[in-house]
Amino acid sequence: RRALRIAAGSEAPDLLLRGGHVVNVLTGELERANVAVADGRIVGVGDYDAGLEMVDLDGAYLAPSFIDGHIHTESSLLWLPEFARAVVPHGTGAVVTDPHEIANVAGLAGFNAFVDASHGLPLGVHFTVPSCVPASPYETAGAELSAADIAVGMSNPSVVGLGEMMNFPSVLRGEADAYAKIQVAHGRRDGHAPGLRGRAVDAYVLSGMSSDHEATTFDEGLDKLRRGLTLMLREGSSARNLLALLPLVTDASYPRCCFASDDRDCSTLLHDGHMDATLRMAVAAGLDPVRAIRLATFNVADYWQLERVGALTPGYWANLVVLDDLRDFRVRSVYFQGQLVARDGVALFEAVRDVPTVLRDTMHVAPLTREHLWLDPADARVAVGVIDRQIVTRLLDVEPTVVDGAAVADPARELLKLVCVERHRATGNVGVGYLHGFGLQRGALASSIAHDAHNIIAVGANDDDLLAAIARVVEMQGGLVAVADGKTLAELALPIAGLLSDQSLESTAGAYTHLEAVAAQLGSTLHSPFGLLAFMALSVIPAARVTDQGFVRL
Amino acid sequence: RRALRIAAGSEAPDLLLRGGHVVNVLTGELERANVAVADGRIVGVGDYDAGLEMVDLDGAYLAPSFIDGHIHTESSLLWLPEFARAVVPHGTGAVVTDPHEIANVAGLAGFNAFVDASHGLPLGVHFTVPSCVPASPYETAGAELSAADIAVGMSNPSVVGLGEMMNFPSVLRGEADAYAKIQVAHGRRDGHAPGLRGRAVDAYVLSGMSSDHEATTFDEGLDKLRRGLTLMLREGSSARNLLALLPLVTDASYPRCCFASDDRDCSTLLHDGHMDATLRMAVAAGLDPVRAIRLATFNVADYWQLERVGALTPGYWANLVVLDDLRDFRVRSVYFQGQLVARDGVALFEAVRDVPTVLRDTMHVAPLTREHLWLDPADARVAVGVIDRQIVTRLLDVEPTVVDGAAVADPARELLKLVCVERHRATGNVGVGYLHGFGLQRGALASSIAHDAHNIIAVGANDDDLLAAIARVVEMQGGLVAVADGKTLAELALPIAGLLSDQSLESTAGAYTHLEAVAAQLGSTLHSPFGLLAFMALSVIPAARVTDQGFVRL
Repeated sequence: RRALRIAAGSEAPDLLLRGGHVVNVLTGELERANVAVADGRIVGVGDYDAGLEMVDLDGAYLAPSFIDGHIHTESSLLWLPEFARAVVPHGTGAVVTDPHEIANVAGLAGFNAFVDASHGLPLGVHFTVPSCVPASPYETAGAELSAADIAVGMSNPSVVGLGEMMNFPSVLRGEADAYAKIQVAHGRRDGHAPGLRGRAVDAYVLSGMSSDHEATTFDEGLDKLRRGLTLMLREGSSARNLLALLPLVTDASYPRCCFASDDRDCSTLLHDGHMDATLRMAVAAGLDPVRAIRLATFNVADYWQLERVGALTPGYWANLVVLDDLRDFRVRSVYFQGQLVARDGVALFEAVRDVPTVLRDTMHVAPLTREHLWLDPADARVAVGVIDRQIVTRLLDVEPTVVDGAAVADPARELLKLVCVERHRATGNVGVGYLHGFGLQRGALASSIAHDAHNIIAVGANDDDLLAAIARVVEMQGGLVAVADGKTLAELALPIAGLLSDQSLESTAGAYTHLEAVAAQLGSTLHSPFGLLAFMALSVIPAARVTDQGFVRL
Repeated sequence: RRALRIAAGSEAPDLLLRGGHVVNVLTGELERANVAVADGRIVGVGDYDAGLEMVDLDGAYLAPSFIDGHIHTESSLLWLPEFARAVVPHGTGAVVTDPHEIANVAGLAGFNAFVDASHGLPLGVHFTVPSCVPASPYETAGAELSAADIAVGMSNPSVVGLGEMMNFPSVLRGEADAYAKIQVAHGRRDGHAPGLRGRAVDAYVLSGMSSDHEATTFDEGLDKLRRGLTLMLREGSSARNLLALLPLVTDASYPRCCFASDDRDCSTLLHDGHMDATLRMAVAAGLDPVRAIRLATFNVADYWQLERVGALTPGYWANLVVLDDLRDFRVRSVYFQGQLVARDGVALFEAVRDVPTVLRDTMHVAPLTREHLWLDPADARVAVGVIDRQIVTRLLDVEPTVVDGAAVADPARELLKLVCVERHRATGNVGVGYLHGFGLQRGALASSIAHDAHNIIAVGANDDDLLAAIARVVEMQGGLVAVADGKTLAELALPIAGLLSDQSLESTAGAYTHLEAVAAQLGSTLHSPFGLLAFMALSVIPAARVTDQGFVRL
């Protein structure tokens, strides 16, 4: 009723944003209009001229704040409140997130802890329930989510659908377990179907999947759009598909497209940005700016059926950004539910650092000795072959270097030891194999980020440094470590589920950058040594891995 | 699972439609592809080449069947199954209908009877719950729907939202009754806000309304689109707004637009068509054909959240039409859930004529004599002034023709008697006044269709013919009658709630056309005498009416 009085002009709104260009994603227009806000919501757009507080925009652009259609916030290495501090100054008003890294470590309890941590943030955090935990039977994860668990997760009011169904081969084969999960889900069902074409797309769509963010080529994207999947154009820290897919965004198809980042690490967030960076790139590549904003706002909200966000319309939440222009997308200020929450790139709120117990003390590792790293020469006639900037690997035939009856690392021949240590239940499982192409000349790297089961993964030029690096990860209750000659050269503690830092964006990004530099000093020639190490146990992607259960051929 | 086997090619679909151009409303393309159908659903679009049944399309166009975004099926004068027989051959696969005419006569029971009658039809009938029954306090309707009744109606699984909120002044004033109804509703809330502009649109949108079909000008439509209402471009039998609004359909706005007919009488359905006629007109006016089809299919389904209709996509119902071309939109054949239901303009199904008791015997009229038609000269100094082809009227000052102390009809002076007889509860209420501009020279016309309360409305050149015409309407348990010199010249029985025929489309349209011709012979100069008579008691539109409660100035 108060809103009606404001529309009628008999009462002043809480806030009047005046003198700007309103980006109208519904009509494609830039409107010269003032925006009236009351009780956190937009109550009018037009010739309103009064407000308890008035902000002059001097011709700047007012747009709905941006929404990421699909992200794993764990990829930032930041605890959720700090993630908000990182992305809100870039104009992000909401994200749809699938916390499947956390779920692989801490199950439904971890999922619930994430949902709880999202409350009260100046950022809409909408969840999907992870559908593929564990990702495969070849790794020992910390938890398992059954169809029944997923049904429980779906009942949470913060949930908007089912998380990406990565096990698409199982869906295509019509397997009961995958269908049981799809059937208990409601809302949208997020797809993940890399490389699917033609009739296989028909089959995937028939299962009930409604979107996909894995397309990497024009033709693949077109097949998916044609058969009814909402196409998420992904632009992450590693997987960068925007430019290849942008020609798919036509006058006819754009309502079925939106932007997503999938994975954005803390360093990218700090130095490049979030959806603002994607908009900058899309517009530089020729996309109409208002349409680009639509793909990062209304279309995401529309697809996920997020209520009352994604447009500057009466009754919608006053989640909006002030932009200097529609080219660089420099974000001057950010409002969330009518409150100013960031200005000139700086968050105006503090991140709470309290972390729930269920996400603490998750490292449970059986005693590890040199004997566990012993590699039988008979098992060492194959190696995992790294390909820089790609998460697929090669399966290589090699001749082991044998010393005292054991296959050993031999950096001169590009042969390193790859070790995966089970860390959830102290089973004592240790997998050891050869890794080729990583380029380390000395020392060892270890990480408790190892998709998707998140055991400890380590690569090293000798067993002593491997043991030291792994021991340090356990001591820190998770983290990233670079060791040489028995000494820790760089480290980043990730005490939250072994996946996330409890420190600030700046400190985390600094430590991460330093680790990558040290890895390069140790001889790694890869673009992102720790980034790629995290995929060396991922047993759902070809062609070879080492998990806690040993060498896996895929 | 069967669908997966078909997609994989290991099993044949029930039906293969091959050699056509598939109208892909998601990508805007015309695809050369075959469509495989199994168990009533589309299972594949592509290079499928087998089918238990195969239909060659010889280059014809395959489109999703059409969906009417807003219609009162009562306007056809046909009982719902016969309405299906009328529209399905024109390619209509679904309608969203607000049965508020029936609800004004028979309340929630009538509404439920309509929903029941929709089951099993080869037409998707999606309901909104009438929000404004009765329409005004100046008429005596047969029923009333409270907010509690609306809540009950909303629980029906055939319901997709709240019916058009015609009482928009009450919404803008924030009145409790209107808000109570809006708040019990879920799904979409259909708007009705003729002439609303600027801040008034803000206020209407704030109330929760989500669409509007009443815009008649470009500027009005633009205001509504800008502030978030889905714009329904209306093209009915009387209200024809398509051409005025079509320039609003731009590359940026078209996802927020759709087509609706609101009212289509049986004669228009028979001779002109339904959504096919609207498509023909839109394309002739320059709209891209695939986009036009999108506005009559996907966009309607998307707005109303109708499940699995509106596109030719795996998993969707095989509700589709075969078109010779995308200019004339001649419908060659129509499929509903994979079954052929119409071919070459002929329905391939029979309409059930069973009508539920609650919609029979609804005429309850107190004995009516000449005395009830007595018009006091003191009350006869004003007249309702008819305007041809418009439902607004004028309030005219007139000098009554007085005979024996009573104001009488005087056709030579264009003064006729307008009589409204309450017919729901035998209250004996009779309203009498002058009507100017109708043009009848002799005899009388009577109708039990009288928006929105649906009492008996009659116009006549003398009292005897008025009494005879009204008596005949009562005898028929509702209907339309033309009488002269005591003799019935033409009639159409409407025994279903006094609103609908229980006969076929052809017979009903024939009788209706004949009635209009007879009215013209009796001297009426109006484009549609019975069509306009039905609005002479509608006490929510300016400027003058006669209801069962008497002469009303608005």
